[in-house]
Amino acid sequence: MQNYKIIVQYDGTKYNGWQKQGNTDNTIQAKLEAVLTRLDGQAVEVNGSGRTDAGVHARGQCASFKLSKSTDAHRVMEYINEYLPRDIAVVSVEAVEDRFHARLNAKGKKYIYTISYGVYENVFERRYHWRLKEELDIEKMKLASEYFIGEHNFKAFCSNKRFKKSAVRRIYSIDFENDKKNGELRIIFCGNGFLYNMVRIMTGTLVEVGQGKRKPEETEKLLKSEIRSLSGVTAPACGLCLEEVFY
Amino acid sequence: MQNYKIIVQYDGTKYNGWQKQGNTDNTIQAKLEAVLTRLDGQAVEVNGSGRTDAGVHARGQCASFKLSKSTDAHRVMEYINEYLPRDIAVVSVEAVEDRFHARLNAKGKKYIYTISYGVYENVFERRYHWRLKEELDIEKMKLASEYFIGEHNFKAFCSNKRFKKSAVRRIYSIDFENDKKNGELRIIFCGNGFLYNMVRIMTGTLVEVGQGKRKPEETEKLLKSEIRSLSGVTAPACGLCLEEVFY
Repeated sequence: MQNYKIIVQYDGTKYNGWQKQGNTDNTIQAKLEAVLTRLDGQAVEVNGSGRTDAGVHARGQCASFKLSKSTDAHRVMEYINEYLPRDIAVVSVEAVEDRFHARLNAKGKKYIYTISYGVYENVFERRYHWRLKEELDIEKMKLASEYFIGEHNFKAFCSNKRFKKSAVRRIYSIDFENDKKNGELRIIFCGNGFLYNMVRIMTGTLVEVGQGKRKPEETEKLLKSEIRSLSGVTAPACGLCLEEVFY
Repeated sequence: MQNYKIIVQYDGTKYNGWQKQGNTDNTIQAKLEAVLTRLDGQAVEVNGSGRTDAGVHARGQCASFKLSKSTDAHRVMEYINEYLPRDIAVVSVEAVEDRFHARLNAKGKKYIYTISYGVYENVFERRYHWRLKEELDIEKMKLASEYFIGEHNFKAFCSNKRFKKSAVRRIYSIDFENDKKNGELRIIFCGNGFLYNMVRIMTGTLVEVGQGKRKPEETEKLLKSEIRSLSGVTAPACGLCLEEVFY
C-alpha cells in the first residue's frame, strides 16, 4: 500500500459538502473515492482534513488515501483530474509515509470569508461571496474580532446542539483585507480547528457589529455565554472558502 | 430627454450575446432595455458599443440610452442593479451630452482571451477560459501575433461570409500575460474595431502556432489570402472578455 496526500480545490455550489453521508454521492469525498476506486481497482477511502458544509468552497482542502498499487504521484494527479467533474480539481499529489493522515495530523486551518458590499456586485464572483448592500463599519468589526483571538470555548459559535466533545479552540489570527475599489471585504481566519459552522457564525456576528446592530465588546459576553442563540446569524455558505490546511 | 453612458459587466455564459434578435429576450441588451423601460415608463433603446457573441463575457462593455425623465445617475445605477439578473451588473452610470453614442463614438476596444494550460484547471475560473492540456510555445505565438499589428484586411479572420463592408481594421497591440504558476495565459488585444469572431479566430490561429501546427510566419500569408477557411479554429466564446471600450 502506498499513502498519498492531495490538495483539492472545489466550487462547492452544487455539492452537499465534503463528507459522504448515507446514500448521496453528491459530495466531494464521494466523487474522489469513485475516481480513485476506479484507478486502483479496489475500494479506496479518502480522508479529508475535515468536513466543509454544503455550498462551501475550497482552494486548499487536504486529504489522504492509500492505493494498493504504488503509482507515480503525477500519474495519479492526471488520472483524477481527467475523471473528476470540472468543479473539483486536484492541485497536487504527493506520495507520503504511511502514518500521515489528513485529519489526525492537521495542526490548523485557514478560512477566508468574502463579503461583497460595493455599489454593484462583481458578476464573476457572485457564487463566491455574501452580497450585502449596506456599508459596513469595518473598524468596529476588527475590534469585535479581537475577542476571538486566543483559546476560548466556542460553544456559542457552533450550530451542533448535541456537541459533546470539547468546544475549546484556539484562533491564531483574524485579518481583514478591504478592497474598497471593488467593494470586497475578505476576513481571513486562522486557527487550530473550527467547530461546525463556526467561521460562518463568527462572520455573521462580525457583520452585525459592522451594521451597528451589536457592539464590538459584546463578543466577549457571547463567548462566555456559550449559548448559540445569543450570537449572530450563520453567514451563507457560498462566501466561505477553506484556503489552507497546516501540518 | 437625458442621455446616459453606462459601463456593464456580464457573465455571458447563459446569454445569446449582447444584441437583441428576433423574439428572444435572452440577450444582455434586452435585459437592460426591460429594466430601463420599467424605470422610465416608456420604451428605452440601449445602444451597445458593439455586439458580443453568445457566451462571451464583458467587464467593460459600454452602452448609451436616453430617458424621458432626467434622473440622478446614481439612482439609475441602483435601480438597474436592483432589477437585473445577478450575472449582469452596471458598474457606472454617467449623464452625458446628447450627441454621445456608445457605438458611433467608440474609438477602440480591448479584449482579453484567457487560456488555461496548467496541470489542473482552476475550478473557479472554469467558465471564463479555454482549457487546453498541451503546453503552448508562447514565444512562437508572440512572433505570430506581430503580423496582426497595424492596419490589415482581416477578412480571413471573420466568420461572416456575406460581409460587404470594409474588413480593414487596425490592431494597436497584442500582449501576452503568462502566469506560469497557475498555468494561465491571457492574450490582450487592442484595436480600433473587431469583425465578427475576429478575436476568437486570431486566438485559435495563435494557439495552433503554439501547438506547432502552424509556423508563425504563416500569419502574414493568411492575412493576404483573405480566405477564412485557411486560418485557424474559432476559439470558444467562454474564454473571451470585452475588457474596455475607448472613446
